[in-house]
Amino acid sequence: MQQANGTQQRNGRSKYNPTPYEAAVLGFRNYWYPVFTSGEVNEKARAMTLLGDDLFFVRRQGKVYALINECAHRGTRFTHPLGIYYFKGTPTITCGYHGWTYDVTNGMCVAVPTEGPTSQVPGKVRLRTYPVEERAGIIWVWIGEQTPVPVEEDIPKALLLDNAVVKVRNVIFNGNWRWHAENVNGGHDFIVHNLAGRNWFKTLRAYQDPEINTPEELEDWDGKGVASRTRDAGKSYSLWDIPGLGRWPQRPLWHRLLVNWWIRTTRRYGGAGISRGMLSLPGYFRVPGHPNNGNLYYEWYVPVDEEHYIYFQVTSWFPTNIFGRVGHWLKYYLHGKPLGVVRFNNQDAAMVAETTAYVKRHGPGAEHYFSKLTQNDRFHELWREYCNEHARGVGYAHARTKDAEARPAAVGAADS
Amino acid sequence: MQQANGTQQRNGRSKYNPTPYEAAVLGFRNYWYPVFTSGEVNEKARAMTLLGDDLFFVRRQGKVYALINECAHRGTRFTHPLGIYYFKGTPTITCGYHGWTYDVTNGMCVAVPTEGPTSQVPGKVRLRTYPVEERAGIIWVWIGEQTPVPVEEDIPKALLLDNAVVKVRNVIFNGNWRWHAENVNGGHDFIVHNLAGRNWFKTLRAYQDPEINTPEELEDWDGKGVASRTRDAGKSYSLWDIPGLGRWPQRPLWHRLLVNWWIRTTRRYGGAGISRGMLSLPGYFRVPGHPNNGNLYYEWYVPVDEEHYIYFQVTSWFPTNIFGRVGHWLKYYLHGKPLGVVRFNNQDAAMVAETTAYVKRHGPGAEHYFSKLTQNDRFHELWREYCNEHARGVGYAHARTKDAEARPAAVGAADS
Amino acid sequence: MQQANGTQQRNGRSKYNPTPYEAAVLGFRNYWYPVFTSGEVNEKARAMTLLGDDLFFVRRQGKVYALINECAHRGTRFTHPLGIYYFKGTPTITCGYHGWTYDVTNGMCVAVPTEGPTSQVPGKVRLRTYPVEERAGIIWVWIGEQTPVPVEEDIPKALLLDNAVVKVRNVIFNGNWRWHAENVNGGHDFIVHNLAGRNWFKTLRAYQDPEINTPEELEDWDGKGVASRTRDAGKSYSLWDIPGLGRWPQRPLWHRLLVNWWIRTTRRYGGAGISRGMLSLPGYFRVPGHPNNGNLYYEWYVPVDEEHYIYFQVTSWFPTNIFGRVGHWLKYYLHGKPLGVVRFNNQDAAMVAETTAYVKRHGPGAEHYFSKLTQNDRFHELWREYCNEHARGVGYAHARTKDAEARPAAVGAADS
Repeated sequence: MQQANGTQQRNGRSKYNPTPYEAAVLGFRNYWYPVFTSGEVNEKARAMTLLGDDLFFVRRQGKVYALINECAHRGTRFTHPLGIYYFKGTPTITCGYHGWTYDVTNGMCVAVPTEGPTSQVPGKVRLRTYPVEERAGIIWVWIGEQTPVPVEEDIPKALLLDNAVVKVRNVIFNGNWRWHAENVNGGHDFIVHNLAGRNWFKTLRAYQDPEINTPEELEDWDGKGVASRTRDAGKSYSLWDIPGLGRWPQRPLWHRLLVNWWIRTTRRYGGAGISRGMLSLPGYFRVPGHPNNGNLYYEWYVPVDEEHYIYFQVTSWFPTNIFGRVGHWLKYYLHGKPLGVVRFNNQDAAMVAETTAYVKRHGPGAEHYFSKLTQNDRFHELWREYCNEHARGVGYAHARTKDAEARPAAVGAADS
Repeated sequence: MQQANGTQQRNGRSKYNPTPYEAAVLGFRNYWYPVFTSGEVNEKARAMTLLGDDLFFVRRQGKVYALINECAHRGTRFTHPLGIYYFKGTPTITCGYHGWTYDVTNGMCVAVPTEGPTSQVPGKVRLRTYPVEERAGIIWVWIGEQTPVPVEEDIPKALLLDNAVVKVRNVIFNGNWRWHAENVNGGHDFIVHNLAGRNWFKTLRAYQDPEINTPEELEDWDGKGVASRTRDAGKSYSLWDIPGLGRWPQRPLWHRLLVNWWIRTTRRYGGAGISRGMLSLPGYFRVPGHPNNGNLYYEWYVPVDEEHYIYFQVTSWFPTNIFGRVGHWLKYYLHGKPLGVVRFNNQDAAMVAETTAYVKRHGPGAEHYFSKLTQNDRFHELWREYCNEHARGVGYAHARTKDAEARPAAVGAADS
Repeated sequence: MQQANGTQQRNGRSKYNPTPYEAAVLGFRNYWYPVFTSGEVNEKARAMTLLGDDLFFVRRQGKVYALINECAHRGTRFTHPLGIYYFKGTPTITCGYHGWTYDVTNGMCVAVPTEGPTSQVPGKVRLRTYPVEERAGIIWVWIGEQTPVPVEEDIPKALLLDNAVVKVRNVIFNGNWRWHAENVNGGHDFIVHNLAGRNWFKTLRAYQDPEINTPEELEDWDGKGVASRTRDAGKSYSLWDIPGLGRWPQRPLWHRLLVNWWIRTTRRYGGAGISRGMLSLPGYFRVPGHPNNGNLYYEWYVPVDEEHYIYFQVTSWFPTNIFGRVGHWLKYYLHGKPLGVVRFNNQDAAMVAETTAYVKRHGPGAEHYFSKLTQNDRFHELWREYCNEHARGVGYAHARTKDAEARPAAVGAADS
């Protein structure tokens, strides 16, 4: 239905009849999203808003559960400092206000201690629950109304390999998730990331040749998505003398010499990695191709609300022996994380905040103007079409109100 | 009229046709509200927003007056740092901008010094005034459009006794006044106040027995209200083994032994005090019954705006000799105030903020879901019905705009 | 057209059919406004919102340019920390995101380095530019859609004299520009500025005699405006015993003696300066009359947004020899600036914030009530009528949205 709706709307661009992508301010529902690492959730309830829904996550008897973060009685958050795990040893959580106690496995209220055995609430009031799975040391939650697909469908297969080592950095950034998804489109390296440590040894292109760089829908063993294909990226590092302006890029001599030497000696075309970026639903970036001994990088843009998202970064490697294990560990903590995952990617996030502020100033529909502008944007133009055709569901701005209607109505009915 | 309106609407629960209680986001008008202690208002004008109206309070020749806190000329607040008591010895206040001077006893502008004797303003421009009375060391203001009732009608008689000693704590809390009024309903003690110092010697019930605890409309010598009646509270402290969960409440052994010993030796059923709570209009909590040598506790929830209220707490005792006077004084400052009035009651306020945040997230009507849920809520269910039938008036969200229309219109008329 | 509109509406006071002045919440467009001093703008782009438009100012090859502060590609601000002057020596600015490079002299995009020579953007995408002129060490920008008038038309001629020394203080204050313009109307000195150092030697009137103080439209060699005329201001310092209240003003004995002595000995009627205030479009205050050896004072109220304005203060003197030059320099930095320009005028700004808060509380139309109230207000009453008749244009609240429509549409058109 959402599908049909999407297809039908994909050409209508008015803000009164938005495409699924334009409507997905709060993201696409009916997907598995990574939220926390396994170590970040324990017996104390932890709050997180996802796609506009206010949830809490809690661990009971080793398993993680996610429920709506509002007691059905007075709306108290279970993550309030006064909230407690009262009946230790049971899969329950107790509201810090009147003690309403719920079974976290199905959301059912199992006791209202302050009303005693005659209370009519237990067995009748149920909190909304959200399916949760733990894979690769990451906690995945299903946000949506449809029946969940197997979680493996929404996880890159590489992360599920037996020898996969998975490192996570998850931060909440200010910005709408879509503008970070569209940021991965190449072309900003020499400015946003100019001379960022991570670029020192990369053979960046002065510009992308439209004849060579062609975005396309791609499917490999790891899943489907939209990729920007590049042939012979290694040769593509060049300088361009722009008439009337000057040389582009203006990198210092020492750096050009360093890079040229690096290319000749190592024959490693670092630039290739970036240029083969691939976007997949519900909004994550990855590098296609079967994992080799090298490491892989993934990043999810998990919508929190209209103006915030979890920037969920995953770096993974696949050691076959102890040396590979240690070598990658050193490479990650000495170079990859500080220079790349943190500094380099925070530069992108700064730009995402700019675009978000622009759309906020100009109101809904402003993002239309980003479309079809330039050849470099063909990448996320195709990405938008891809979402309009294949997205399972669309986020909605009234998630909370809908919850309010859904939840206590049942109770009222039972009473009248 | 408001009466009829209330009766007629009391069963209509849609947010488009709210009951008086649901509409009273800014409180019930046409009541006397406590605002300051006598010592808190002097010659320097002091600002306070009440039920959405912006007032200032000022003392002239020993008497306190309250007026709208906006000069009719340019809207300057009289409480602005530049505002002054210019003509000392007269019952006036002078705006800090152009010197418009008003008689605080009737709000009439008596001089515009900067325009001289020919000014047409004096005698024509009048500020809205609010009736003020001082009783029991408390400043009471009448917020409403109807003729004020005698202030004694809205003050618990006990506070007016000759030997009454009155102690006040008034703080502005974040929250809507109604959710604190409904908080007084029993049942949250073992959680919100679990092991709060004030509960150490109280025989709290494990749960309230619906056969015994029956809310009812009550009228005693002190006035009318809604009370929760309790028979034999002393016996009601119990433990309950909840099937599949465990014992409730889970209080440590040392504490159970302490309480049991206390009950046997003193035969004082402290729990009774709490269980006989009573709510009266326009929104205050008290303990019914003729004052004995013990102390009485009252608390008002005075609406400031939609999301703030003055938590006006009054502790009172009635000494018949110097020993009673000193004894209660020590008990109040060493135990009652620090452990009860401040720490204990701030725990309630924290829950009120939670409920307010919930209603704000879900919009008007969300509070419907609090109704008729459980047997413990029969208390504030009855309280809501009581308000719908007996409330004198309802607050309105446009108090400020109405003022604007009311005030300078007179002037414009006079000119044209 | 705006003219006609103004005339036709000048008596209609409903907020649904506002007069041009009432509609000019964001100021009057199609005027030259002072923004920065020459020293405040250099090679690094500097942001400023004016009349609701988001601009940046930048200096290239010695000349200052102003453009809309949003890249046409993704809305990134050129003033973002990552924004750069990439192609040094050329009159361009480069966006910090994808390197779109614009010619600041005409706003045209001249290169998208990251797309190479085949990019279709250069020569097709143009940023909105704003005419800029530098005069008297001040940077003036034309905000409007009509063809700019010669900048000299909107600058007081005195500031353009060869021997003019110009000192500027420009601060952004909280408040709507109109309430500061109307503040210059006399009558608040004895209160807002009571005993301000600047008033010590001034023969202020106890009140303004309506027979003497008559506002009028005035035109002198320096330009047109609305002035309050005063005959014989020197005699007008008086005391007034207000029946039933007391003496006005209540200045201490030492001060009355000081002032009387000062008048007798110096025969300088300092009060005259204040009373001959004059308001000109688009909203600045000045002192009429050909400059003598004394100094002149001007202040502009440059709208930033609905609730902020640049308080642009200019003090100027016209030395004919080195002694005059140094003497005025000392007088300004020892007395004029600290006591007057800063302390004295900040007192006015505090009142402007009060009026702005009042209008915000009561919503559009509240300012109507300021009209026709009193004889002193005839001054800004005439000022309002003057604006309704002579203003070149009116600000509009949707400046930003209009930009959004105007800008990228051209591009979309070119593509389809």
